[in-house]
Parts: sequence; C-alpha cells; structure tokens
Amino acid sequence: MGRAKKFTGVIAPLLTPFGGDGRPDPVRFLDHARRVLEAGCTGLAPFGTTSEGNSLSLSERMALLEALVRGGIDPACLMPGTGTSAIGDTLTLTRHAVELGCGGVLVLPPFYYKMVSDEGLFAAIAAVIDRLGDNRLRLYLYHIPPVAVVGYSLDLVARLARAYPGIIAGLKDSSGDWSNTEAVIGACPEIEVFSGSEVFLLSNLRAGGAGCISATCNVNAGAIRGLYDHWRDGDADTRQEGVTRFRREIEREPVIPFLKAIVAAEHGDPAWRQTLPPLSAMAEESAERAIARLAALAAVPARSNVL
Amino acid sequence: MGRAKKFTGVIAPLLTPFGGDGRPDPVRFLDHARRVLEAGCTGLAPFGTTSEGNSLSLSERMALLEALVRGGIDPACLMPGTGTSAIGDTLTLTRHAVELGCGGVLVLPPFYYKMVSDEGLFAAIAAVIDRLGDNRLRLYLYHIPPVAVVGYSLDLVARLARAYPGIIAGLKDSSGDWSNTEAVIGACPEIEVFSGSEVFLLSNLRAGGAGCISATCNVNAGAIRGLYDHWRDGDADTRQEGVTRFRREIEREPVIPFLKAIVAAEHGDPAWRQTLPPLSAMAEESAERAIARLAALAAVPARSNVL
Repeated sequence: MGRAKKFTGVIAPLLTPFGGDGRPDPVRFLDHARRVLEAGCTGLAPFGTTSEGNSLSLSERMALLEALVRGGIDPACLMPGTGTSAIGDTLTLTRHAVELGCGGVLVLPPFYYKMVSDEGLFAAIAAVIDRLGDNRLRLYLYHIPPVAVVGYSLDLVARLARAYPGIIAGLKDSSGDWSNTEAVIGACPEIEVFSGSEVFLLSNLRAGGAGCISATCNVNAGAIRGLYDHWRDGDADTRQEGVTRFRREIEREPVIPFLKAIVAAEHGDPAWRQTLPPLSAMAEESAERAIARLAALAAVPARSNVL
Repeated sequence: MGRAKKFTGVIAPLLTPFGGDGRPDPVRFLDHARRVLEAGCTGLAPFGTTSEGNSLSLSERMALLEALVRGGIDPACLMPGTGTSAIGDTLTLTRHAVELGCGGVLVLPPFYYKMVSDEGLFAAIAAVIDRLGDNRLRLYLYHIPPVAVVGYSLDLVARLARAYPGIIAGLKDSSGDWSNTEAVIGACPEIEVFSGSEVFLLSNLRAGGAGCISATCNVNAGAIRGLYDHWRDGDADTRQEGVTRFRREIEREPVIPFLKAIVAAEHGDPAWRQTLPPLSAMAEESAERAIARLAALAAVPARSNVL
C-alpha cells in the first residue's frame, strides 16, 4: 500500500457529559476532548462503548461530532463510532463523519441478531462501504464480543481487509483475549490493530500493533502515552506494570460510571457523574471511596491527568 | 382501569420485502399486510424481530409505517416495534407511531449494554414515556432474551405496570419459557400478555393471556386464528397440535429466511426471499425442498394461508 498509517498511539473513547435534562452537552464534551488531547492522547474515538455511543440518538451523535470539529479539534484525529444494528443508520453516521473529514470511523458489526454467519456480516459491512462509495473512508472494525456479543472472526477480518484494501484500515480488539489480537496482527499486517485496553499495550507494540484505544485514556492519558513513547526503553515493563495497576483498580468498579465520577471530581463538576439509562451513575459516597483508593495507588509514574 | 382491551388475538410481526437495491418496498409490504389480515390476523406488529425491524434505518421504519396507514390499514390494529438501543431514537419512533394513531408500540429494552440493572432499564422506559408525555401511548414490552439478550424481569414488568397504569399495556414474551409467561399473567393481570409463539397459544388463553404475536402468523394465520376463536371448544387441543406441528416444521430451518421463501413461493415473487444483512436468504433449492416438506404435512386443518 505505501499509505502512511493514519492512526497510531493512544486513543481515548471519549466519555460523554449530560445536562440536567439528560441531553448530551456539547460544550463540556469539547472541553473534555481538549483536555484528553493535552494530556497525551494521539486521537479521539467519540461514541465508543465508553462514550455510551449506542445510547445516543443518531442526531445527538452528529451534533456532538460537529461540536468537536467546529470547536477546533482536528478531524483527522477523530475516529467516531458509527456502527448501529441497521445498515442504513450506520451509513448515515459514516457518511456524516467522512464528510466532516474524520480520519476514520470505528464500526461495530450489526449487533441485534446473534449467531449470524460471517457471510452475513461481510455483506453488512460491504453494503456500508459500497453504498457510501467514498475513497476517503478509513473503516476500523470494532470487535467487542463481551458487549456486542456479535464479533468479527479472524477469517472475516482477513476477508474484509483483502476485499477493501486501504478502506478497511484497522481493528480495535476489545475481546480481552490477547491471543486473538496477536493472531489478527499476524494475519493482517496491512491493517492497524489496536488493543482495547492498555493492559496489552506493550505486547501490542512488540508484536507490531498500532497502540490502544482504551476507556482509561479518559483519565490516565499521560502515563499510557509515556509507555507508548518509551516502549523500546529499559523501563518499559515497569511502565506497563504501572498503567496495568491503575487499570485494575478502575476495573474494581463499573468502569464507565467510575470514569465519569473521576472526571466529575477533577473538573469540580458533579453533573459529569451522570450516565444515560440503561447505565446507572455511581452514588456520590461510593465514588468518593473509590477515588480515594485510586489516589492511594503509589509508585505509578505520571499516574493520571485528572487526579 | 375499565379500559377496553385494545389488542387481543393473533398478531403478525410482518415480514419486510426488499427491492433489488436492498431497500424496503412499501408497495409489497402493504400488499402482504392486507393478505395477512384477510387470512385472519387481528393485528399487525411491523418491525419486530421477524420483520428485520432493527436492521431497518429509522427513516425506513417511519416511511413503511406511513405506507401502511396511507394504504388504508386501520392504525388501531398496528403495534409497530419502536425499541432501539438509544432512548432518543426510541422516542422518535414512538412519537411517530402515536401521532399516526397506532393502537400500540412494541418496545425492546435498550439492548447494547448487557448485564444492566432493572433500575437502569426502568429509567430507560420511563424516560421514553415521560419525554413523550402523550396519554394515547399504549406501550407493550418486548421480552426476547434469546435475541436481544437484555430482557424484562418479572419484577421490572410489575414495577413498570404499577408506575404507568394504562400506558404500560402489555408484554410479548418471546423467551420461549412458558413458566415466565404464566408468571407475568399471574403477577400483572391488568396488562395484556402475548406469547411469542402459537405453540403456547392454548396455554396462554387458558391462563388468561391475550393471544400470540408470532412469526408464523405471516404464513399460517388461518389455522392460528381458528385455534384462537375455538379455544374453549372440544377440538381445541387437536387444533393446538396442528399449529404446533406446522411451527415445528418451520423451526427446522432458519425461521425468518424460511418464512420469506414461503411468501415468495405463494406470491410467485422470488425477490420476497431477500433478507437484509446480517441475515442471509435461503438458497432457492433449499427453499424448494423445505416448502415441499411443509406441504406434505397432512392432517392440519386450514393449514396455511399461503400454501
């Protein structure tokens, strides 16, 4: 291909703030996007699982994305989630993102029907690409079977990458199964493979992967970026241990509500704790206890951008 | 309440036909709706699982619903599926259906996140009802954990029915677990409880339920309606055996593609076989073999409206 890699490094699936009316708030969203970039992220993935992206309406997603671009975020560093259960809606969101100049889109497989064939999933992704018909498209496959249940098999990834070279640009592997990530990197060297958690960042880079797209980048971008920048250095394993320890502490609580509570504490903005149903926000006291425990984590270099 | 029951009987989750361009075809959709009503259905549930409803875009669903109403189908007999993973989109579809005069809507729980709390699901449904703020709303809970994975627990159904009397009008139970249906009928006598398969129709009616909303009603409405009309008669068990035998034969194949193949054969319209990805259509030869096997099912009174 010879094409320069567009996305590498440390990408945050942006948390989404809500107002008192339960509507997403573009002003605080833009503010958070800027902070996360300043803290070290190389890109942003709004409307991922961490973003409650599939709990947002189509029009809410489009308005929020426009707010980021209008607010001065370089669209080349944006990889919004555009996958829905319906080809037509995925197409609408994907077209909108490409027309705004987004560097990529992160696409779930259609996730309503379960136990569907690779043939059917191939046809769904192919329909989006073919109906869009825009060579600017850079499509990243979003593999997250623990949530979506439906996922991209290794065979399907390879088949899509062969059928749409350059257009199928990468994959985010949130299976939690490192052996799957390793297999995709081995089988599809032409695409950029991201781990869905920084726990696998060093392994990902040593195997030839592109980096991580991880929930925790919303609050620990500095340390994760440090590991990314220094992964060939002598202290890389120590850095990996530090970010892993931080991540494990986050995972002791429901991850999305806990991350929102951390941002709320950092910004002095309790409304940041809010989630959209069906997720539930952390109660204030639980959040305070969990944050105190996290702050007590010593020996993590450049531990967090928000604490 | 004293409110007359709006929906009872035999309701078809309408199959959706597609054109050569992969877009839904409102003309053949309307034609099929009329045939199914003539064959004995008491109501129609477009955009259910059988309808590939969650594979249709929001605008496609709204255009198809308008085509039915404009085409003369009484909106009072329509119970379109309006549930999506996002409250805002569910609200858009629900408002559209209520404003068209639909007798009810069939609402999946938000189905992207798994293992969510009843509290979170309650908040999601409450948000749709409260933000709509329209007393004409009759909301039927769509419980189909084999596909959506997320479902409505018995406690949650009872809590919603108590919180929104008259608005929460019923439930479709596609769990495949008769003991769950029986428990809902017992715990919530004020709502209309439908079985998701006619296999349970006689049990449903004997327990005080409202009927069935079943995929097979697209092709076997006459026999199922016969059982509904005669459920207190001496031959009810024999009728139940007949419709059950037919249903079991349908279930030997992937149900949605097989039903579409049957309609294609009946209408002499091979394009009816098409499905939307990620589902795959039946190959012509497999369809012919399966239809021949179905036609060979003897001793089923008034077996099918299409064969």
